Amino acid sequence: MNQNCDIASKIFNTLSFTDRELDILNSKFEKITVKKGDIILEANEIVTDQYYVLSGCLRSFFIDSQAKEHTLQFAIEDWWASDFTAFFDTSKSILNIECIQDAVLYRLSKNDIDYIFEHFPQIESFIRKKLEKAFAGFQKRILGNLSKTAKERYVDFITKYPNIEQNIKNYHIASYLGITKESLSRIRKELVKKQ
Amino acid sequence: MNQNCDIASKIFNTLSFTDRELDILNSKFEKITVKKGDIILEANEIVTDQYYVLSGCLRSFFIDSQAKEHTLQFAIEDWWASDFTAFFDTSKSILNIECIQDAVLYRLSKNDIDYIFEHFPQIESFIRKKLEKAFAGFQKRILGNLSKTAKERYVDFITKYPNIEQNIKNYHIASYLGITKESLSRIRKELVKKQ
Repeated sequence: MNQNCDIASKIFNTLSFTDRELDILNSKFEKITVKKGDIILEANEIVTDQYYVLSGCLRSFFIDSQAKEHTLQFAIEDWWASDFTAFFDTSKSILNIECIQDAVLYRLSKNDIDYIFEHFPQIESFIRKKLEKAFAGFQKRILGNLSKTAKERYVDFITKYPNIEQNIKNYHIASYLGITKESLSRIRKELVKKQ
Repeated sequence: MNQNCDIASKIFNTLSFTDRELDILNSKFEKITVKKGDIILEANEIVTDQYYVLSGCLRSFFIDSQAKEHTLQFAIEDWWASDFTAFFDTSKSILNIECIQDAVLYRLSKNDIDYIFEHFPQIESFIRKKLEKAFAGFQKRILGNLSKTAKERYVDFITKYPNIEQNIKNYHIASYLGITKESLSRIRKELVKKQ
């Protein structure tokens, strides 16, 4: 087993592999340690990698033409991060990804995941199911944006990311919810009053 | 070949199959003809099927607690429709799906797609790629909701669905964009002036 230890068994935790298969799989992942504030991906780069988050937290965000930041997602333990739209067809990113809590990541390249899909159909199936869950999460978010108040979306957020709030900045949360910091502050006060 | 003709070759158009395989695959699809106004799925039903749209147009929408409709998606030719969040884990739908242009659909059950994934890994791979594209589309929509004006979102909409506009109601488009019919009308007038 190589220096990555057995990350493959952790990531693909419902699957079984032979030792030889695990050696191959583990050799595809590159362990990376990043610090709070480090940039993992910048907009306009060709996206060739995705990142499995072993610990810590990443934030993916979009910077609009007025230089305003909009948070797409937070990636916490056992999540994957990338600009997937760009990763899927190896095109240029529109997202930036930064580390917002010191993190241990495992990088996997597009070439290597294509190799894995070709040689390990059970992993393609595993990832297809993960993708279904991610798709369902996005569907819920779109419906929330269309039909819910900012307060309801904030409650959804703290349910989805229960332990994240104390570690990230208010403007990250506000920019995820599509509201101002002042609105976020007002919502929090209203919720405290109700308790 | 059965009564469905060869829908499998049309749907999985980049793949090759033997005649025997095509017979199996085609037998899994049930052809359904629906009329404008027909309801294909209602909220709170267990979702066991997805629908391939051969022709026509479906609309999936959410009805909130104030009985207001919010359009999640339109499904046109060569799209799939379902409440996928519920379909993926055979749970109850929160979406409704109605036919908004007379349509020919091919119904595929969860059991049958699971059978297909098990016996045709190349189809699982094909669907995984479709799912990636759908995921990317949702990501774009979320970023659009966070960062774009209603006018920019309307332009995105008519680019994504170029031939749909003349056939569907204004409140469908407005409820997809998350704006009022009046705002939609104002945006259209502004765009006409600019031309």
